[in-house]
Amino acid sequence: MTLTRRAMLAQLGYLGSAGASLAALQSLGVLSPGSAKAAGFSLPPGSGSGKKVVVLGAGIAGLVSAYQLAKAGFDVTVLEARQRVGGRVWTIRGQDPIIQKNRPPQAANFAAGNYMNAGAARIPSSHEAILGYAKRFGVALEPYLNTNRSTGWDFGGKVYRERQMVFDMHGRIAEYLSGAMGKGALDAVMPKAERDAFRQFIGFWGGLDDKGVYGPNSSSGFTQWPGGYDTPGIAVEPLTMKQLLPGRAIALPYVFEAINDMQATMLQPVGGMDRIAAAIYEQVKPLVRLGVPVTAIRREGAGVRIEHAGGSTIADFAVVTLPGHLLDRIPNDFSPAKKKALKGIPYLPSAKVGFDAPRFWEDEGIYGGNAWTDRLNENVMYPSAGIGRERGVLIGAYVAGWTGRNNPQEFVAKPIAEQIAISRGSVEALHPGKSRLLGPGVAVNWGQVEYSEGVGAIGDDFGERKRGARYDELLRPEGPIVFAGEHLSYVGLWQEGAALSAHHAIELVHQMASA
Amino acid sequence: MTLTRRAMLAQLGYLGSAGASLAALQSLGVLSPGSAKAAGFSLPPGSGSGKKVVVLGAGIAGLVSAYQLAKAGFDVTVLEARQRVGGRVWTIRGQDPIIQKNRPPQAANFAAGNYMNAGAARIPSSHEAILGYAKRFGVALEPYLNTNRSTGWDFGGKVYRERQMVFDMHGRIAEYLSGAMGKGALDAVMPKAERDAFRQFIGFWGGLDDKGVYGPNSSSGFTQWPGGYDTPGIAVEPLTMKQLLPGRAIALPYVFEAINDMQATMLQPVGGMDRIAAAIYEQVKPLVRLGVPVTAIRREGAGVRIEHAGGSTIADFAVVTLPGHLLDRIPNDFSPAKKKALKGIPYLPSAKVGFDAPRFWEDEGIYGGNAWTDRLNENVMYPSAGIGRERGVLIGAYVAGWTGRNNPQEFVAKPIAEQIAISRGSVEALHPGKSRLLGPGVAVNWGQVEYSEGVGAIGDDFGERKRGARYDELLRPEGPIVFAGEHLSYVGLWQEGAALSAHHAIELVHQMASA
Repeated sequence: MTLTRRAMLAQLGYLGSAGASLAALQSLGVLSPGSAKAAGFSLPPGSGSGKKVVVLGAGIAGLVSAYQLAKAGFDVTVLEARQRVGGRVWTIRGQDPIIQKNRPPQAANFAAGNYMNAGAARIPSSHEAILGYAKRFGVALEPYLNTNRSTGWDFGGKVYRERQMVFDMHGRIAEYLSGAMGKGALDAVMPKAERDAFRQFIGFWGGLDDKGVYGPNSSSGFTQWPGGYDTPGIAVEPLTMKQLLPGRAIALPYVFEAINDMQATMLQPVGGMDRIAAAIYEQVKPLVRLGVPVTAIRREGAGVRIEHAGGSTIADFAVVTLPGHLLDRIPNDFSPAKKKALKGIPYLPSAKVGFDAPRFWEDEGIYGGNAWTDRLNENVMYPSAGIGRERGVLIGAYVAGWTGRNNPQEFVAKPIAEQIAISRGSVEALHPGKSRLLGPGVAVNWGQVEYSEGVGAIGDDFGERKRGARYDELLRPEGPIVFAGEHLSYVGLWQEGAALSAHHAIELVHQMASA
Repeated sequence: MTLTRRAMLAQLGYLGSAGASLAALQSLGVLSPGSAKAAGFSLPPGSGSGKKVVVLGAGIAGLVSAYQLAKAGFDVTVLEARQRVGGRVWTIRGQDPIIQKNRPPQAANFAAGNYMNAGAARIPSSHEAILGYAKRFGVALEPYLNTNRSTGWDFGGKVYRERQMVFDMHGRIAEYLSGAMGKGALDAVMPKAERDAFRQFIGFWGGLDDKGVYGPNSSSGFTQWPGGYDTPGIAVEPLTMKQLLPGRAIALPYVFEAINDMQATMLQPVGGMDRIAAAIYEQVKPLVRLGVPVTAIRREGAGVRIEHAGGSTIADFAVVTLPGHLLDRIPNDFSPAKKKALKGIPYLPSAKVGFDAPRFWEDEGIYGGNAWTDRLNENVMYPSAGIGRERGVLIGAYVAGWTGRNNPQEFVAKPIAEQIAISRGSVEALHPGKSRLLGPGVAVNWGQVEYSEGVGAIGDDFGERKRGARYDELLRPEGPIVFAGEHLSYVGLWQEGAALSAHHAIELVHQMASA
């Protein structure tokens, strides 16, 4: 939303503990972005003329850098600490192990074909860079269902369907405004003809009767659904404002669909979010060394020397795509200014819990979308893929500070078993009697995932409005060393930001190599 | 929406020519329904004990009747006038011919795999009966994208994106209400604590600043999209109320997504809407006689005699699923009351225009959803299926009275070539320079489609509120003859209504057969 909305949120205390939650909102797109025209990005062909570049990290920023640099004629090596590419794009399948620091090891228990996108899970249609790579490499896309009026909102211990909350809220807003207009509240604001047209519109928009009163509204659902042979629908009784606003935690669900990066149409790759990273990896596979953590970043002559497990790599240039807070811990020859800028960058330790289960939610008419709750799990997410199949993976928690409480910190302080139990309890509240159908469940705590330790940089230095000196410093090359990653873009916590920042970083490499 | 909203619409003149447009809104779901629990419907097995039933019509109502009756042990014959099943579920593919009364013959020009759902095109997730048949017969379903914030709204000669119209409208509504509250407009309505919480919420919901003012809002889009490396987003300037409400025609687009039957999640069969009818047909194929128009419906003894092309069929019972206005023209032995009730039932003559084209809209970030316009074509619909494929069918017009002008009558009064030209012009306004990429285009005018002559019954006798004596009479069996079809349900103009009415009709057959 707007800068001012963000300030207002903090001021009003809508976000509870402002530190954690502002950050969470910001990083999850409330305050973040779309993209520039970037689908067709390329460096000039042959411009690399064999100069050597080492790329640190094989997440989206690293893979994009490697692909584009190699295509332009650079001699590229990618060093990736993990045994897989993708970074915070992590799709868990089958019996995949989930190893986290200070957490017991887990293994997924997912039926064949089922998966859980533990990290990145959705792509707005405005993210042209990442969608451009999907298209370029033939990655099939399908709709990601980010809004569903049939899901439940479980706040203050009561569950209502989203359609009732959203459309009764519209109705109440219209009723209040129409009433105020009837008493002349807008007489000074608009000329009469415009005012009359607007008041008529408001009645239509909110579903008011001809006296401006809001009553049972079919938009909000039915107690008796319209049927065959003499069965008119009976609409639900409207909720009161107290029922619609039981507390501050419910504010975000009402505006979630308005967040620019969360608006329809959203997309996902068929088969799991990692399909895009995998497709770029296919292009550069021989260049990528997996299982090679970097231990030091050194300048050597006009170039760089990267020390790592099993030796070191010399190159003319380096593209460093590691998260800022992890980079801070790697011995380096950076300037004092850069070292200072890298100190203490906060990263969001969000968490997800996934359960393989038969699709009982589809039997209740729920296909995709999100349920919301003021419980600690915050979110239940229904799979958009595989509609009609027997089983799917239900996300029982996506904890990121959505509801303004001290989350994800409060949630991830619980043992894994309790995180799963909380999620199971929330599913039970939304689907009474059904939580017994859930598989054992796995919990990913991003703060404990080695080589990530969070899903993205948060805080004022990484917000949506024009950033300050720290951010400027982080963008600045260190001689032949350039930097990329979502935290260096204004599309923070999205694959798009990683790809766009990589485009900028390798432009710098190109310029230096051509100079 | 609500009964009262309907009344208000008429009163306010929001619907222009009230006759046509009220009817259109009603019939397209503004005033119509969802469904009762019906996914598992069955008659008692073996209860038919070989009694003979003739089913008139192989649309959804006829196919469902035939399937269920045969499964229960009845001896079923279906008479269908056309050479295809499905009725108003009509998926046009490849070079399919389009033959209409008083219209030149057309042929589709669609690339392999592309199709146009000329009639039924979407299924709300609440339509349990039709979704139940899809599931029962293994018809694969996929999301139908009915809302997309990236589409254009072309009113008063100006095109804005839906996200700007919808979220600027929210912002303006919030701004007016917050301002009125600041002057005490709700002081008498809510206690202070509740009022303060609500006013805070309204600011959040609308994106207001801390003075209650609405300014540039990222929900509404950007003039500069947030990017990589020091590129903060610059949100669009907010529109004025005059720009947001240039005329009455724009009212429906604002509430379209609130219509119960249009709410996310919507679904469609993979490969075309006719896949469900085709799957039921597979179950009863040997029972269905195609190309057999009925010429008379006669009582004979305790049973019926159906006269038709090539002879007559004798049976113990008949299930008549023909549209009311066509049934009226078939000689019959019905009671005077029934004959009277069948006189003059109005049917909606809606129209669609389809173009095969390369997916230029996806290059602009548009995947599925509807554009809206006050031009005569009213609607442009982007395909939800086949995202990322080279070509798709763009619906350049779906004319049904959505925007309150004298449509579809005004549109369908034009020659087919002009209907296509109008649609092409609308696509050009939404996508400058791109209409040249559209294929030749085909127009389906449902009022001229033989054996349909409209897409469904409209008018007060077929509205959402408790219906009157005419409807009651149409439901009443004529001895061994029972009636089904969308017009006899409260889910008018939907496959769901056809299926649910069939369930009721064959229950009557079952009861009579068991008596």
